[in-house]
Order: sequence, then structure tokens, then C-alpha cells
Amino acid sequence: MEYRIEKDTLGEVKVPADVYWGAQTERSLENFPIARDINRMPIEIIRAFAYLKKAAALTNADLGVLSREKAELIAKVCDEILEGKLDDQFPLVVWQTGSGTQTNMNVNEVIANRAHVLQGGKLTDYPKVLHPNDDVNKSQSSNDTFPTAMHIAAYKMLVELTLPGLQKLRDTLAEKSKAFWKIVKIGRTHFMDATPLTLGQEFSGYVSQLDHGIRAIQHTLPHLAELALGGTAVGTGINTPPGFAVKVAEKIASLTGLPFVSAENKFESLAAHDAIVEAHGALKTVAVSLMKIANDIRMLSSGPRCGIGEIHLPENEPGSSIMPGKVNPTQCEALTMVAAQVLGNDVAINVGGSNGHFELNVFKPMIIYNFLHSAKLIGQACMSFNDRCAVGIEPIHENIQRHLQNSLMLVTALNPKIGYYKAAEIAQKAHREHKTLKQAAVELGYVKPEEFDEWVDPMKMVGNLD
Amino acid sequence: MEYRIEKDTLGEVKVPADVYWGAQTERSLENFPIARDINRMPIEIIRAFAYLKKAAALTNADLGVLSREKAELIAKVCDEILEGKLDDQFPLVVWQTGSGTQTNMNVNEVIANRAHVLQGGKLTDYPKVLHPNDDVNKSQSSNDTFPTAMHIAAYKMLVELTLPGLQKLRDTLAEKSKAFWKIVKIGRTHFMDATPLTLGQEFSGYVSQLDHGIRAIQHTLPHLAELALGGTAVGTGINTPPGFAVKVAEKIASLTGLPFVSAENKFESLAAHDAIVEAHGALKTVAVSLMKIANDIRMLSSGPRCGIGEIHLPENEPGSSIMPGKVNPTQCEALTMVAAQVLGNDVAINVGGSNGHFELNVFKPMIIYNFLHSAKLIGQACMSFNDRCAVGIEPIHENIQRHLQNSLMLVTALNPKIGYYKAAEIAQKAHREHKTLKQAAVELGYVKPEEFDEWVDPMKMVGNLD
Amino acid sequence: MEYRIEKDTLGEVKVPADVYWGAQTERSLENFPIARDINRMPIEIIRAFAYLKKAAALTNADLGVLSREKAELIAKVCDEILEGKLDDQFPLVVWQTGSGTQTNMNVNEVIANRAHVLQGGKLTDYPKVLHPNDDVNKSQSSNDTFPTAMHIAAYKMLVELTLPGLQKLRDTLAEKSKAFWKIVKIGRTHFMDATPLTLGQEFSGYVSQLDHGIRAIQHTLPHLAELALGGTAVGTGINTPPGFAVKVAEKIASLTGLPFVSAENKFESLAAHDAIVEAHGALKTVAVSLMKIANDIRMLSSGPRCGIGEIHLPENEPGSSIMPGKVNPTQCEALTMVAAQVLGNDVAINVGGSNGHFELNVFKPMIIYNFLHSAKLIGQACMSFNDRCAVGIEPIHENIQRHLQNSLMLVTALNPKIGYYKAAEIAQKAHREHKTLKQAAVELGYVKPEEFDEWVDPMKMVGNLD
Amino acid sequence: MEYRIEKDTLGEVKVPADVYWGAQTERSLENFPIARDINRMPIEIIRAFAYLKKAAALTNADLGVLSREKAELIAKVCDEILEGKLDDQFPLVVWQTGSGTQTNMNVNEVIANRAHVLQGGKLTDYPKVLHPNDDVNKSQSSNDTFPTAMHIAAYKMLVELTLPGLQKLRDTLAEKSKAFWKIVKIGRTHFMDATPLTLGQEFSGYVSQLDHGIRAIQHTLPHLAELALGGTAVGTGINTPPGFAVKVAEKIASLTGLPFVSAENKFESLAAHDAIVEAHGALKTVAVSLMKIANDIRMLSSGPRCGIGEIHLPENEPGSSIMPGKVNPTQCEALTMVAAQVLGNDVAINVGGSNGHFELNVFKPMIIYNFLHSAKLIGQACMSFNDRCAVGIEPIHENIQRHLQNSLMLVTALNPKIGYYKAAEIAQKAHREHKTLKQAAVELGYVKPEEFDEWVDPMKMVGNLD
Repeated sequence: MEYRIEKDTLGEVKVPADVYWGAQTERSLENFPIARDINRMPIEIIRAFAYLKKAAALTNADLGVLSREKAELIAKVCDEILEGKLDDQFPLVVWQTGSGTQTNMNVNEVIANRAHVLQGGKLTDYPKVLHPNDDVNKSQSSNDTFPTAMHIAAYKMLVELTLPGLQKLRDTLAEKSKAFWKIVKIGRTHFMDATPLTLGQEFSGYVSQLDHGIRAIQHTLPHLAELALGGTAVGTGINTPPGFAVKVAEKIASLTGLPFVSAENKFESLAAHDAIVEAHGALKTVAVSLMKIANDIRMLSSGPRCGIGEIHLPENEPGSSIMPGKVNPTQCEALTMVAAQVLGNDVAINVGGSNGHFELNVFKPMIIYNFLHSAKLIGQACMSFNDRCAVGIEPIHENIQRHLQNSLMLVTALNPKIGYYKAAEIAQKAHREHKTLKQAAVELGYVKPEEFDEWVDPMKMVGNLD
Repeated sequence: MEYRIEKDTLGEVKVPADVYWGAQTERSLENFPIARDINRMPIEIIRAFAYLKKAAALTNADLGVLSREKAELIAKVCDEILEGKLDDQFPLVVWQTGSGTQTNMNVNEVIANRAHVLQGGKLTDYPKVLHPNDDVNKSQSSNDTFPTAMHIAAYKMLVELTLPGLQKLRDTLAEKSKAFWKIVKIGRTHFMDATPLTLGQEFSGYVSQLDHGIRAIQHTLPHLAELALGGTAVGTGINTPPGFAVKVAEKIASLTGLPFVSAENKFESLAAHDAIVEAHGALKTVAVSLMKIANDIRMLSSGPRCGIGEIHLPENEPGSSIMPGKVNPTQCEALTMVAAQVLGNDVAINVGGSNGHFELNVFKPMIIYNFLHSAKLIGQACMSFNDRCAVGIEPIHENIQRHLQNSLMLVTALNPKIGYYKAAEIAQKAHREHKTLKQAAVELGYVKPEEFDEWVDPMKMVGNLD
Repeated sequence: MEYRIEKDTLGEVKVPADVYWGAQTERSLENFPIARDINRMPIEIIRAFAYLKKAAALTNADLGVLSREKAELIAKVCDEILEGKLDDQFPLVVWQTGSGTQTNMNVNEVIANRAHVLQGGKLTDYPKVLHPNDDVNKSQSSNDTFPTAMHIAAYKMLVELTLPGLQKLRDTLAEKSKAFWKIVKIGRTHFMDATPLTLGQEFSGYVSQLDHGIRAIQHTLPHLAELALGGTAVGTGINTPPGFAVKVAEKIASLTGLPFVSAENKFESLAAHDAIVEAHGALKTVAVSLMKIANDIRMLSSGPRCGIGEIHLPENEPGSSIMPGKVNPTQCEALTMVAAQVLGNDVAINVGGSNGHFELNVFKPMIIYNFLHSAKLIGQACMSFNDRCAVGIEPIHENIQRHLQNSLMLVTALNPKIGYYKAAEIAQKAHREHKTLKQAAVELGYVKPEEFDEWVDPMKMVGNLD
Repeated sequence: MEYRIEKDTLGEVKVPADVYWGAQTERSLENFPIARDINRMPIEIIRAFAYLKKAAALTNADLGVLSREKAELIAKVCDEILEGKLDDQFPLVVWQTGSGTQTNMNVNEVIANRAHVLQGGKLTDYPKVLHPNDDVNKSQSSNDTFPTAMHIAAYKMLVELTLPGLQKLRDTLAEKSKAFWKIVKIGRTHFMDATPLTLGQEFSGYVSQLDHGIRAIQHTLPHLAELALGGTAVGTGINTPPGFAVKVAEKIASLTGLPFVSAENKFESLAAHDAIVEAHGALKTVAVSLMKIANDIRMLSSGPRCGIGEIHLPENEPGSSIMPGKVNPTQCEALTMVAAQVLGNDVAINVGGSNGHFELNVFKPMIIYNFLHSAKLIGQACMSFNDRCAVGIEPIHENIQRHLQNSLMLVTALNPKIGYYKAAEIAQKAHREHKTLKQAAVELGYVKPEEFDEWVDPMKMVGNLD
């Protein structure tokens, strides 16, 4: 491979001849050979940097500390990054400095070098039209840009991927709930037969879980909307022109179409990532909900002949390499694995979030890696589960009816008529003697046959369905 | 010990002669000899049950399904429970049935038996004036009462203990921030010297963390305010009179003075505890904040002679059994241990919350035990930390000044004047040659002495302090 | 209440007149009003301290740095503590200084004061026959005594409670496995019907899990057997006579009958609690196993009429306050709640263990509180689950047979005869047309009736049962 | 793109014309569009499959159920996979069916199709020389192959990457410990000045942590060495020839050079992943150690002028985009981020491990993804930390000396001479009056100057250094 020489404040570095990155990126590549095959810095962070570098450049120009020409040039490269044209220029991994400094410098270097080439220069020229620190990074520090990129990337993914995925699944489940509203079936508590409810009521619980989960995520957005930019090195805003913080946040809001604002307190924004911890707290709540829903759905569909078998799921693939004809609830499995992952990611974020010290939390790349991982997994897994499982759920009436008729817990309807203790006697006798409730009730003399038929009517036991 | 005979639907049970509990409580005591010395069902749950049993009885009477006399009697015993007069009548542990059924029955039995005695009866009479199932538990099931008690207890503790503790600490830190607002000191990022800020700014970050944390908890209150009562066995409300759910929630709201409402969806309320998972997600966020704050404070106070030593903490006790005169940041240690515990409790809650199945989550006692543990720990530890540490924090000006004058990172102020690269040269030379920045700057010829004094002024590097 | 005046190096303190504790205990009581109702320092730690204080005193006497008389006196009080006679003299909570210093001083003070009274003195005398620091704490520091007590308490509980509980449950499950060895039943993978196995084979998997879990715990014992005592303040052993560390460990081994040794490296023993983290890693592994086993057992027993119903569990209590006759798998629920708690405790321990700094980890009380909690919960919950559930498990042959005969996955036996694809066709046809496998197989012309009967024999599909 | 038609038991599927994978792989690709950009099934699992498919084929031939020719052909393609020639043929993601069935089929299909091409055939031929189910998967099921691949991949990575990385770092720290053995410095407990120790002793604690951590991992290897292969669908070994399980494990051991054996109990091996849970319990213990060590090292190196500054770390890159000349402990940061990640991964594994049901745990891909992630991160991060940080650590004698001389805790040496209380008075006076210990001691009249010099000698306070 051919190389060119780049330099930074520590000296010279050999860099592949044709890449746009410079000395600091190359140093980081060499210094952190950790999980390079699987843990590249999330591309969403690079894109978020493009928004903020563009916004910073334009704001610097507006405030008179950067020439309009340089600002436009920076903006132009940022647009290329946003279009995905330079994705291969960001080779660094998550496991680098905990401030993300080298990723900030990677972006600064790529912008400076690419701009120079766009202007007709060569990568070996020195100096270039833009300086990565003095121009591209003007009015900024890694310490405020990286957390700003974290919030931009996190917020965008939540509103563009996670929430739409959840909403879509919620809507499908709501449709199913409506469609199944009057299908009376046996309830189950403690895995044991209980009083009846309708299949629609059962699904309405899932809808309510997701409704609340969506709201939980939305509650965390205002904190995420706060941007650190303008805090620079330690939160004081050293080396920023007056008004920079507020204006640059407005610019980012305008570029992204999202309601970003300048953080109330920049010291918090650099030193802590409570906004991420808090928002991931909502994601883990949703993961808990999804685990419950997917578990229920796969257990309700269990069988086909030796399980519960009250619903049927779409058959998407052969389920076994050895058992012919087997079909499995694979979308449920992907979703529950995702839920487990999110619960693990939550702890990684908590550990990172709690270990910030003084003016800077230095677990930033790890924190945002886990957050984006969770947000993406939930959004895409919900979408997949929706399209390939939820939409195709159908009741299996035969099994539902059989279970309903067999259940001893219909006896509960007799409590207000004959009291809990006599009702218990009936259920116990039926259970012990393998009889129907009605047989047991009549034999014990507590209820007349016609009373039983009137009082023990599953349809009356599920509340008002209107 | 003397015994009397009690019975339930499974038969007879020997119960200590003078206790108010009955057969089912006694069975549970014998069936679950697990951590009896340390994990009794939280008393806050028992008190919450007293509110709901009273509310249910009064509502039953209002709706004509229970005599006014019985309702008043139930209410009377509930008041005794709320006054703490019957605390020793609730001996069950957390590790019982996952629905909390036996705790519900413990309350039902104690109310029925105590009421009978209040009416002049004897514990050996049979039947008694109230039936634990047919009267005290009327229109209820363990499946809706226990989650209702969970929400009542959780909500009450958050607003009466956790939030006040956090608010108190937040206010003290805000006062400190104000008092220290103009004390310029060195900043630290990556544990390394950075540009300056004021001690007040540093503390303002903590205030902002707690402000956001308090808001995060408040966001979760509406979900916690939803009560399951009225759902009975599986959420359908079987065996409840029309209107019960809404009216009983109003009654509980009135009795507690808290804005409880009937849950939007009772199926969710029984089958999932997402409200608790979500609210504890806010508590873990606060734990993360507290860990950061307490760590900073103890590291800033480290020394007295071989550490950072920029602040002084109150000396509350001798710190060592072997090192005479040692004083340690013990309140910080209690608070950080609490934070670690809350992060653990969060995972226990997540595991429990995600493992609900069909119509009922049966990790209820474990979930609420962990929630109340965290809520109490945070509230009381914040209060203790506030009273015995935060209020007494004082700056140590001598050390603050020394560090500030020594720092090489004041060189950052030169970036806009001479560029990042030359500024770096100055810092590196000063570091290498053990010189002051000014010496190095002047020797390199980049800055004149009087320029240096004008440009490198820490007071100007901390932003606008007004 | 009456008081007497005690003093320490910070001055005078009012202490209740008749308690044995002194100034430092009282300060800690007042300084840490955190979860006092539920989180007293585990009594097992106090007992462990009694062993070590006795051992230290005797060793000090042997080495000539403490009079034999004083040593005997200390030993005498320690024996009283071990007999449980002084349990109410240790009122401190977990949430104190992170080194456990005040608990060490609590023990020192109680020993000194009680010894004085045993010698006929009064609590108001000054000085007393023993000095809490110079005599009782001789050759010791909180920094080495507290971790020593942690290891003693943890090791003892593992071998006396946790491992016996696991072993007992393992043995019962092994008996069940043997008893059920030839009961052929349908297998289930993905909750879906699969090829058959025997109920005994299914249970043998649980036995294997516990066998491996027991071994996993045993592997961690050698690290736990290392005692920090002799390291004193920072691990150097300052103020200990030569030979103290090794001799005192031998003495503790002799007093407890457990194979304790002096730690290889005292610096590690004070600054880190990896032995606890590691041992709890084994406990969490066991918790994972128990969750699986208890879940299986409750799902296998689900029903009685609308679930799987292949096994029957003992009926220990009425299961519902509203549904008469309901019986629930409550021991499974207690066990799974315990498992969830242990998974949470693991994270608390990890967070505490990872936050030690320099020469001392100051999350000690929190760490050992969680460890002992888990060890006790597992031991006692296994015992309870064993006695009230596992021993009484019985197969329900009728349901087992019905499921076995119905299953479509018996078709797998045809793979080696007709190939996977044709076998799949048979299963799909049977499923679609609600036929038996045999009908479908014959109709498709792939197998003759007599071949089917010979080849598709569940008894031949479960491997060699001898 | 051009396509060809492939089919499986559910029908036809369009597959890109030139890939080796077939219908089931393609279905899975389409069915699981979840985190495709970042979560491909780990390549280590694919390689492990190559070992086991080769071993199974050869064993099948040895046992006479597969032709030698077919076996050789399978082995040939497996060798290509092991050489990395077919890496792009395994496009599936982690988030698929929880049994990993589609990855097993992906391997089966690639082997069958590639073998056909190696034999001179075309991808559009039908049938091919090998059948993916009947030949390549012979005597196997996804249910035993996937867990076998998990153990092979996990074991290999631990012994080839994780343990060597830990050992290398351990050895470097041991060298440093030896080199620094007589450098006396101040100790720190609770972040506060304590009695002295040597820098070498401090580092010896880290060595001891890693020694124990390495042993902890080694203890878990025997469980990981157990292979599920031979259990097929549910653990019974249906459709395997007699002796298959033991022989195939021997073959795998021979091919990999690692001590794999056939699992004691195949039911456990399919239904639970306790071996992984247990082994990751050791990895999280190591993560806890690494967090402690890396934290200490960065805090000891803090400064350069306003921190502790007792050691110097190599300067690998410019540390700040805004603060010129700043150098940060970036390798410590990568390592602590890795530790946090491992603590999170542990929880994901626990959740997955605890949620196996009946005969199969269906969180397999998620579990192994997290395990391999942790094992790789620890191995590579230790290596990086070793090479770029640990090897270059140097003491800063000037600061070490200054701190040592200033410390008040040297007073501890006076305990055995004048008692704890008088020693405390000296320290308190010195602290209050900003004096040296000697001044205070002499002024109080407790010690003569020459006694002080003799008794308070830091070199005598660190124990025997030989």
C-alpha cells in the first residue's frame, strides 16, 4: 500500500495515500486494535457529527469568527457525509478514548482533507485550505461535540425507527384486539386455569403495555433534546463567540427538523449522560413489555397438538433440520432475544453513566453504542415481528372452545350466590372425581341444574364488552 | 404456645391462640421458611392494603353489596392498621406465592378476626361477624388488590420520601453552587488537568442532574397512579358491582390524598408491572447521578495532604480503627453503596417484570420489595448525605489556587490568538522542562509577556458568571 | 431513656445507659438513618467477627503482644456472641462507611464493655479492663477484619446452607429421574411438539444442571478461603507481630472447622472483592438453572384442564382469594422470585466490586449484604422447594399418553427410512387435514401400515434407557 | 441481480444466482431484517460449525452411515470454511430463530452446494451430490449442533485470545511490581491518605487479581469442554448410530487440539447454557478486576500538575481537540469501557440463560454473541492496554516522595508505642495547625524528636520486602 505523511502535535504519522483521514485517526486505528471486525463507531454517530459540524461552521460564519467561504466548504463535505458518500472514511472503533476525541478528529480531518480535494488540491499539499482544529473544530471541543452527536443520533433513531416500529406493532395488536373482542376463552394465572376473558381483552393488555411504553419513551425526549454544543472543553464555553450555544442548537434543529435546544446546563451535559441513561430506562421498560408479549404469543400458539394451541402464527420457514414439518415461533424468538439484549445493554449504560468523573464522563462511545444498539434492535425487531407474525395471528376456535368448556374456574361465578367455600367444594369435587362442574354442583345439592346454566355463563363472566 | 384451630378450603390448621391471622396466613408461614429474619413483606404494602380494603368496603356499601355495618367495621380495623397498631400481625415473607395471595389473605383474616374481637367476640368463635373472603375480600381478588397495593405503596413512598430527599439535596447543592459561583478552579477531564471553571459551575452540574432526575421520576407517576382494583381475577372485573373500579379508585385517592385513578386497562395492570419497571428506570437514573456526584465530592475532598483537597467535608466520626486521626467521606460511601444497590435492584425488577405470563405476573412481591427498597434507600440516603455532608462542604482556597496556577491547560486560551499547534508546543515545552506556561510561551517567542498576562486569565476562561 | 457518656477521638457521645456498645457505634447509629427497619448488618457478619476477634486475641497472646488474661477475656465474650446472647448489641445498618469500620468498632466496643462487666466492672467505669482499639483491635484494622469477616460468613453460609440446599434438591430430582426413567412423553422445543423423551430423561437434565452448579460453587471456595487478616491498614501488615497472618488464619480454621488460609496477597484482599464477585458468579449461574427448572416444572404441571398437565404438584394452600378450588405452583414462584433477586444482587455486587480504589474497596457492607442474601435465599428456597414441591411430584399418565399419541413429530423416526423431505410431507398433510401420521403416511404411499407401526415406535425414539 | 430457484419443505425461494447458500438461508435473510449492518452471526461460530460438520461427516463414515466419498467431500468444504475462503456465504444475523436453526442450515446448504460445484456440477443442478439435511446434517440436529458450535467457539476464544491477553498483562504488571518493589509511597484508603506501602506492593495486588481471574476462567473450562453433539433433536440421540456422540467428540478434540468430550447429559446441553453462563461469570469477575486496575492506574497518573501524579503513562496521541498539549489515559478508558460492556453482556446472558424452556433454550445466538463479544473484548483490550500502556508505566519519584513526607498517617506507627488515642491527638493537631507530625508529636510531649525519627520510618512501615 502507498502512504503519505501526515502530522499532528505529537509528530508524523504514515497514512494510506488515498484516504481522507489524517494523523490522529491513523494513530487511533493503530492504538486500538479491539474488536475491529464488529465494533466500528456507529455510522449514525458519524452522520450526527456531519449535522453538527455543518451547523457549527455556519454559526461560526454568522457570528463572524469563520469566513463564509470556509463555512460553505465544511457544509459541503458534511452533506456528502450525510449522503453516505464517505462512509469508508470513518474506520475507528468504539473502544478508543472515552471522550470520543479521535472520532471528532476523524471527522475534522476528513472534512479538512476532502474539502481541500474538492477545491482542487492534493492530499499531500500542506497546509490545506482548512485546518482540522482551528477551522473545522472552531468553537468546539470533543467534549461538547461528542455528547451532542450522541443526542442527535439517539433522538433521531428513537423518532425515526424505534417509535414507528413500536407504533406499528401496537396498531396491529389493537386491530387484533378488536377483531378478537368477543372470542371468550379461558384465562390463565400462575399458568393455571382461571376465570374466562376474551382473546381481544387479552390482546388489549399488550396494546396498553405498548401505549404506556411509547409514552415512557416520549417522556425522555426533552432531556435528549438538550445539546451540549457550546460548552467546549469543560462546559464553560471557552473559545466560543457570544451566542454560539443557542444559535448552533437552533441551526441543528433546523437542519434535522427535530426540536433540539441548547442544554440548560453544559456542565451536566459533558460530565454525565443521564439523558441517555434515562431514555434507555424507557427502552428497557419496553423490552420488558416485549418479552411478556412475545412469550404469551408463543405459548398461546404452542402445539400444534400437545400445547395450548389457541392461536395460530404464520409459518415462515421450516423449523427444524431434523424434525420434518416442524414450524416454530421464530419471530417471537428474535424479539425475546432482542429484549434480553436490551436488558443487558441497560446495565452497560448504567455502569458507564455512573462512572463519570469531574468535568467529563469518559464512557461516551460505549454508552452511545449500547443505546443505538437497543434503539435499532427494538425498532427493527418490532417491525419484523409485526410484518411476519402479529399481522397473521388467527384464533383456533376449536381449541379455545374446548379449554373454555373444561375449566373448573367457571365456578367463580357462584361466589356471590353460594359463597366462596361451597364453590370451592364444587371445584374440588369435580377435579377429584373427573366430573363437570355442573355434575359436582348438582350432586352436592348446592345448585339446581337450571340455576347452574343461568349463573355459570362464560359470556357473562368477561364484563361488559361494548 | 397455645393454639386454636382455624380452617380454610383445604382443611384445618393450628394457629397460635392469640394472633389475629388465620389458616391461610399460618399455612404460608409454614410453607415458606425463606429469609424470615430479613425479608418480611414490607410494612408499606400492609398499610397500602389497609387503604384499599377500607376503600373497597366503603365502596361495596355505597353500591349496596355489603352492609354499611360490615363496611364500617372493616374500615375501623383498617384505621388500626394504618396507625401501626397491628404491625405484628403480618408475619409473612416476600418469598411466597408470586401473586401475593397469602398477604392479601393475611390482611383479610386479620381484619375479619380483629373486627370480631372489636365486636366483643372471641377468636375461637365460628363463624365470625365477617368472612375473610365473602366480606373483606368482596369485589376483590389478590390479583387486583396486590398490584393496587404495590402502586399505592410505591407512589406514596416516592412522593413522601424519595422526592423530598432528592429535592432537599438538590436545594443544598444549589445553595453551594451559588456560594461557590466565583471560585475559579482547575477543571479535570479524563482525570487530567483541563481548562478552568468555577466551583459553583461544577456544583451546578450536580444540581442539573438532580433537577432532571426529579423530573424523570415525576414523569413516571401517572402510570403508577393507575390502580388495578376492579379487575379482580383476570382483569374482567368478575364479581364486582357496576361502577366499582372507578369509585374505589376515587375513594383511595380521597383517603390517601394522592391522585390515583382506575387503570385504563386492567388486563395490563394484573399481567404486567411496567409501571413499576418504568418508575424504577427513573430511580436507577437517579442512582447513576448520585454515584457520579458522591464520587466527585469524595475525590475533590481527597487528602488531606496527598490528594486533590479542594473541598472540605464535615468530620462525623473517627475513620479508622488503626490509623489515628483519619477521617473519611463516609456519607459519600453510604450514598454510593446505595446507588450500587439500586442498580442491582433494577435488574431484579426487570427480570421479574419480563417474566409475567398470560393474565398474571407472579413476581409481584419480589418486584415491589425491590422497588420500595430503592425508593427508601434513595430518599433516606439523600437526606442523610444532605444533613451530614452536603450542607457542610467548604472550599479549601489554598489548594484550589495552587492547582489553578500550576495548570498547563490555561494554554487553551491562546488557541484563538496563535492557533492550536503553537499552543500545544508551549504546553509540551512547559511540561517537559518543568516550566511555567508563561516562561515557555515567551521562550518560544510566540507570545510577549504582557500578552500572556492579558490573554491567559483564568477568570476570563470560565464564561459569563452573571 | 437513661444515658451514659462515652468518648472516642472526636469527643464525647451520649449512649443508652445499659447497652454494651460505645461512642463510635452510637455515632454511626445517628449518622446513618438509612433503611434501619430492614437493613441491619447481617448477623452472620457479627458472628464471623466473633470468630476472628477470638482468633486474633489468642494469636496475639501466643505471639506475646497481648496478655493471656486479656485474650481469654476477649475469647469469652466472643463465645457469647457466637451463642447469640448479644445479638441486640449490634444495631448498625449496612449503609455506613464502606469499609465497615463502625461495625468493627461496634464489635470492639461490645467486647471491651461486656468483658469489663463480666469482670465485675460497671459500664460507667473509665478506663475499662480492655481498650477497644489497643486491645481488642490489636494487630488488626477494619480494613483487614471486615473482609476477613466477609469471607468467613460467605464461606460458612455456602457450605452450611447453600450447598446442602442444592444437594438436597439435586438428590430428590435424581430420585424422580430414576422413578420416571421409562415414562415416555412428548418432547417440546420452541414450545412446540418435538420428538419424544422420557420424563426421567427430562428430569436428568435438571440434575445435571445442579451437579454442574454445585461444582461451580465449589470451584470458587479456594479464593473465598483466603483471609485478609494480617494485612491491617493497607495490606502491609503494619503493627502486626511477625507470623501473625499465618497463625491467625490457622486459628480461624481451627475454630470454624473450615479450611481458611492466609491470603496469598493482602493488597488484593483489601482493595478488591473478586473472591466474592467470583463466588457470586457461581450463585447467579445456579439462579439461572433454578429459574429454568422451576419454570419447566410449573409449566409441565399447568392446567389442571387447559394446560399441559403432565405432572402433578403437591397442593399446599388455597391458591386464590376469589377463585374457589384453585391451586397454584407457589413453591415454583418463590424459587423463581429468588432467582430474579439473585440476578439483581449479582449486578449490585459487580458495581461495588468494580469501584474499589487504591488500597481499599469501600463497598464492603453492600457487597457482603447482597452475597449473604443470595446464598441464604438459594439455600432456603431450594430446601423449601424440595420439601414442599419436588418430593411430591407425580406423573399424570393419562395426559402424558394423550400428548404422546397425538404428536406429529414422531415422524422424525422416518427420516433414515424415506428422507427428511418425504417425512415433512407426511407431517404437513396430517397437520393440514387433522389426520394421524399413520393415515397421512399411508395415503401418501410412502410407508406401509405395518412399516409405520414398526418404525414409528416412541419407545425406540428415546435412546438406550439402560 | 440474477437469481436461481431453490426449494425447501415450504416451497420455492429465489436465491442470488451465484451464492452457495440455499432456500432456508435466503428465507432467514428476508425474515429477519434486524441490525443487519452490525450483528452478523459471529464468524467464530461459522468456523466452529466447520469443525463439527467435518467431524460429524467423518464419524458418520466411520460408523457406516455415510459413504466415505461424501464424508471426504464435506470435509473438503469445511476446510475451505476454516481457511476463510467462504466467509461471505454466511450472511445471517444473530436475531433469527433462537435455536440457530437457520445458521445450521446455512452451513448445510453452503457445504452441499459448494461440494457439488467442487465436483464439477452447477448450482442449478437438481438434485446435487449432497443433500443438506440427509447427508450434511446426518446424525445431527440444529439443537445439538448449535450448542456444540457455541462451546467450540467459546472455548477456542478463551484459550487463544482471552487467557493469553490476560496472561500477558499479568506478566507485565508482575514485572512492574518487581521493578517498583522498594519504592515506598503513601497508601490511600477511602481516597484519603493512609499508611505507606511500596508501589511494587500496590501493583502486586493487581497481579494477584489477574492470577485469580485467570484461575476463575480455567475452572469453567471443563463444563465448556462438554459437547452436545449426539443429542440431536431433544437430547435422546434419535437418528444417530450407536457410539456417535463419543466418537464425534473425540474427532472434534483431535481436529481442534482442544480437550472436548461428549457431554455427561445431553438434555442439559440442549435445554440450558449454564456452561456459558458460568464461564461468563468468570469473565465478568475479570471485568470487575480490570475496571479496578485501570481506574487505579489512571488516577495514579492523574495530573500532570493538579492530580496525584505518582506514575507516568506512555503518551500515545494528542488528547484533546481544543486543549493543546493534553495527553489522556486513553488505554485505561478503552479498558474500562470494555469492562462496562462485559458487565452488561453478563446480564443479557443471564436473562437468556434463565429463559430456556422444556427441551431447548432458544436464546442461543444472543447468548453466544454476547459471550464471544466479551471474550474478544477482554483479550484484545488487555493486549492493547499491555502494549501501549502497562509496559511503559514509570514512577514519578518526585511526587511519590512529596506525598509520602507530607502524610499524617505515618502516625500509625506510634500506636504500639503510645496508644491509638494519643496518636490520634498528634495527627489532629498537625492537621489543624498545618504542622508536621513530628512538630505536633514533640509539642504534645508524647514523643521525643529522636524517638519520632526512629519509630516513624516509612521504610519500616511496609513490612518485609524480601
